[in-house]
Amino acid sequence: MPAKTMDEIVALCKRRGFIFQGSDIYGGLQGTYDYGPLGVELKNNLKAAWWKSNVYERDDMEGLDASILTHKLVLKHSGHEATFVDPLVDNKSTKKRYRLDHLLADQKLAVLKTLAKELGLADDDAIPEISAALIDSDKAAEIMKNSGVIDTANAKVGDWTEPRSFNMMFKTNVGPIIDEDSYAYLRPETAQGIFSNFKNVVDSTSRKLPFGIAQIGKSFRNEITPRNFIFRVREFEQMEIEFFVRPGEDDAWHKIWVDERLRWWQEQGLESDNLELLWVTGADLAHYSKSTADIMYKFPHGTEELEGVANRTDYDLGSHTKNQHSFNLTAKVEPNKDSTAKLSIADPETNKQIVPFVIEPSAGVDRGVLAVLTEAFTREQLENGKERIVLKLKPHLAPIKVAVIPLARNKALITDKAKEIKKELQSIGFGRVFYEASGNIGKSYRKHDEVGTPFCLTVDFDTIGQGDDPALTNTVTIRNRDTMIQERVAIADLPAFFQKNLR
Amino acid sequence: MPAKTMDEIVALCKRRGFIFQGSDIYGGLQGTYDYGPLGVELKNNLKAAWWKSNVYERDDMEGLDASILTHKLVLKHSGHEATFVDPLVDNKSTKKRYRLDHLLADQKLAVLKTLAKELGLADDDAIPEISAALIDSDKAAEIMKNSGVIDTANAKVGDWTEPRSFNMMFKTNVGPIIDEDSYAYLRPETAQGIFSNFKNVVDSTSRKLPFGIAQIGKSFRNEITPRNFIFRVREFEQMEIEFFVRPGEDDAWHKIWVDERLRWWQEQGLESDNLELLWVTGADLAHYSKSTADIMYKFPHGTEELEGVANRTDYDLGSHTKNQHSFNLTAKVEPNKDSTAKLSIADPETNKQIVPFVIEPSAGVDRGVLAVLTEAFTREQLENGKERIVLKLKPHLAPIKVAVIPLARNKALITDKAKEIKKELQSIGFGRVFYEASGNIGKSYRKHDEVGTPFCLTVDFDTIGQGDDPALTNTVTIRNRDTMIQERVAIADLPAFFQKNLR
Repeated sequence: MPAKTMDEIVALCKRRGFIFQGSDIYGGLQGTYDYGPLGVELKNNLKAAWWKSNVYERDDMEGLDASILTHKLVLKHSGHEATFVDPLVDNKSTKKRYRLDHLLADQKLAVLKTLAKELGLADDDAIPEISAALIDSDKAAEIMKNSGVIDTANAKVGDWTEPRSFNMMFKTNVGPIIDEDSYAYLRPETAQGIFSNFKNVVDSTSRKLPFGIAQIGKSFRNEITPRNFIFRVREFEQMEIEFFVRPGEDDAWHKIWVDERLRWWQEQGLESDNLELLWVTGADLAHYSKSTADIMYKFPHGTEELEGVANRTDYDLGSHTKNQHSFNLTAKVEPNKDSTAKLSIADPETNKQIVPFVIEPSAGVDRGVLAVLTEAFTREQLENGKERIVLKLKPHLAPIKVAVIPLARNKALITDKAKEIKKELQSIGFGRVFYEASGNIGKSYRKHDEVGTPFCLTVDFDTIGQGDDPALTNTVTIRNRDTMIQERVAIADLPAFFQKNLR
Repeated sequence: MPAKTMDEIVALCKRRGFIFQGSDIYGGLQGTYDYGPLGVELKNNLKAAWWKSNVYERDDMEGLDASILTHKLVLKHSGHEATFVDPLVDNKSTKKRYRLDHLLADQKLAVLKTLAKELGLADDDAIPEISAALIDSDKAAEIMKNSGVIDTANAKVGDWTEPRSFNMMFKTNVGPIIDEDSYAYLRPETAQGIFSNFKNVVDSTSRKLPFGIAQIGKSFRNEITPRNFIFRVREFEQMEIEFFVRPGEDDAWHKIWVDERLRWWQEQGLESDNLELLWVTGADLAHYSKSTADIMYKFPHGTEELEGVANRTDYDLGSHTKNQHSFNLTAKVEPNKDSTAKLSIADPETNKQIVPFVIEPSAGVDRGVLAVLTEAFTREQLENGKERIVLKLKPHLAPIKVAVIPLARNKALITDKAKEIKKELQSIGFGRVFYEASGNIGKSYRKHDEVGTPFCLTVDFDTIGQGDDPALTNTVTIRNRDTMIQERVAIADLPAFFQKNLR
């Protein structure tokens, strides 16, 4: 089978109403996407599966939904104002602008080797170290030119500027007065809303360690070069957990969460062959992180991060708490004279107030959607020599669970019966049941294969007792998406049939 | 029974973890709120009920989830850049700033009468007309002062500035270049994402008139004076439908949707006595609207809009379509040379391409949450002379459906059985089941009354066969939130019991 390409997934998404470019009719707003009628169901199903597994089925988790607009002091003390920056370089001759690390990743190895040597780095140093050294150097422009760093736009050595920092947070003015002080940020991650509500949640729920707070919501990053469809975008959705534990129990919990999150993604249909665990080390490890494992997925454009599971120690709560000095913080935090709350909790053994450690499993919803779409996308050769595209989504993720098709659209007895069955199945509550009366039966099967509907149900003349076989009265045909096998099922048995096959 | 005050609702919300001030630990970010562990469930349940009723249970609706960041041309052609403005006035002596219409609403009738006279208005004109006339006048400052318009901050006649326009949209710079052109807006309503995707949805679903597109999502308005808890905020969530119909059938569909939306709110538990239908007329009617009915609710701070149901004619699609002149638009629209798409559809009778009319039922999620909280909040005198607070939420909205309480927390046989029952009930899928082991039984009942949990289920010594009555082995006590009546139910009968009482 040929590899699945991003282009065919993007095309399917547009054609069938999964995902459209944002602000499409005005040329598009780069880095934004709109989820169409089927995309919104797929995305909601993925989020619901996460919430069920992480909030409902556990006894140690609370949910949260914090606001997107965030006080600047939250993002000052989180470290984002100072460190949430990307290094940018411009090529003065082509006027093209690049993220330094992305530009370096596109260079030949010989160029990287020369750069490393010029910068006095060790032989086994890689792009993160080269990038960091270039930012620190005051001769970076010269070194890049002399090392032969090419502009990928024209494959010629560029006339580079000194790299400069670019903060990736979106700012906006809040309130009627426009001055330098009256701004807030669009949150760059949902996590900070969890940390700043730590005390509110503990006070209102009386939780004790270990416990977690889970949140799903939009975040915003002013990416310099959004790319790879919904993989790297400026507006995206996250599913984040901050799981608070006793210091000393953090390594064990970190391992538990890495395993749990891998297991969950497999439950969403991702094959283990396409998943990979990457333990982040050295210069790639964020300054606050004791240890991070990235769950990588083999996307059409390459193997990249789907979720990160980090041991963030007491860095975050320690940065946001008041009276920092009264706690034995292990993380190096900046002083905080603005916070009004002590973000501590009783140690379950000593009963002393401590700032807990935190394990953070942080997943991208849109990346998750792209992964399950990629995994499910299948081109199949049929026996008749034709080909079909079928989206082999797990039933719980499928946008439409059952398509109810009236065989004749102008026969009221058939359409009424089909609508009645649709209504009955819908009321069971396993997701969207679709009354499909847009085309002939072959076209309907083709459509529902492409959008991943597990079952097509056809109401025909036999169903209403006007066919050849009276024994088929009050039965319908059910076609299985994956096997294409059709079977006849009594209407009375339908709820049980779908309860069994959709859960 | 004394009236329910906003203060007691706000206090309950904070104490029990429904809703917190946004960015709380840094003094709060005005006009933003965070939904806590119970608030997120209540809000999600309300949104799910809306989606089920409007998307799943209908055969003429598609869903959508468009991005928040919106191209400036969308909001230019929607009319928001020019007209989504509030008039502001400052009092030069107190430095206080007011929204003109809010300031006028706080004036004595005699002052309004003088203003109307000074402005040459008719006797029966009211605040909208006075406000509009002041904005048009170039002597507004003088007229306001002479008419005795007081500053509510100090109850003295103010030294007013001329009113000026203030656009309520949040702007943000997008991309690495900061200049006058590289900005986008945070959408002020979800509706525009529906209009700009009209063609995408029609092309991918082959829908014919009449049909609608439904969307739930965050919107942002830079309110000058956010107030009344989650009623008037800067970041809020909407549930909007744009229902497209043949011109000529719009009045009938408008009426259908007004009735349907009233019915739906009643289904969420709002008593008809507290709901009111207000047909908007005269200067209050938006320029694009042929007719609007506001569904008003008796909030603790007054009777105000919960949802608006507007007949927006062909104004929106007509404003966003290319080739405007090729359609017989009835609405007055500004010319559009930017759009790349014809936003038309076949007339089901003539088969001619037309721009359809649209009926828009537009509800506020947060206002909905506040309404159901207000309605459900009940202070009850008990027979023993004590009082209890109980949140009489409809079961489908309750954040927690069942609290499973082990009578003894240090008896493994009891806690294991309680956890087993919790897991079993959770798997049925009717929402959150909570393992409640935080306090004694009386405290647990009090808590779950206050958060609206319909049933508390207690596992005791009888359950595990170590009580006084062997006949009670494998039974539990179930307490009804509203009646406080307790009954003994066999564990085997629990799924059926809750299926019956929670749906």
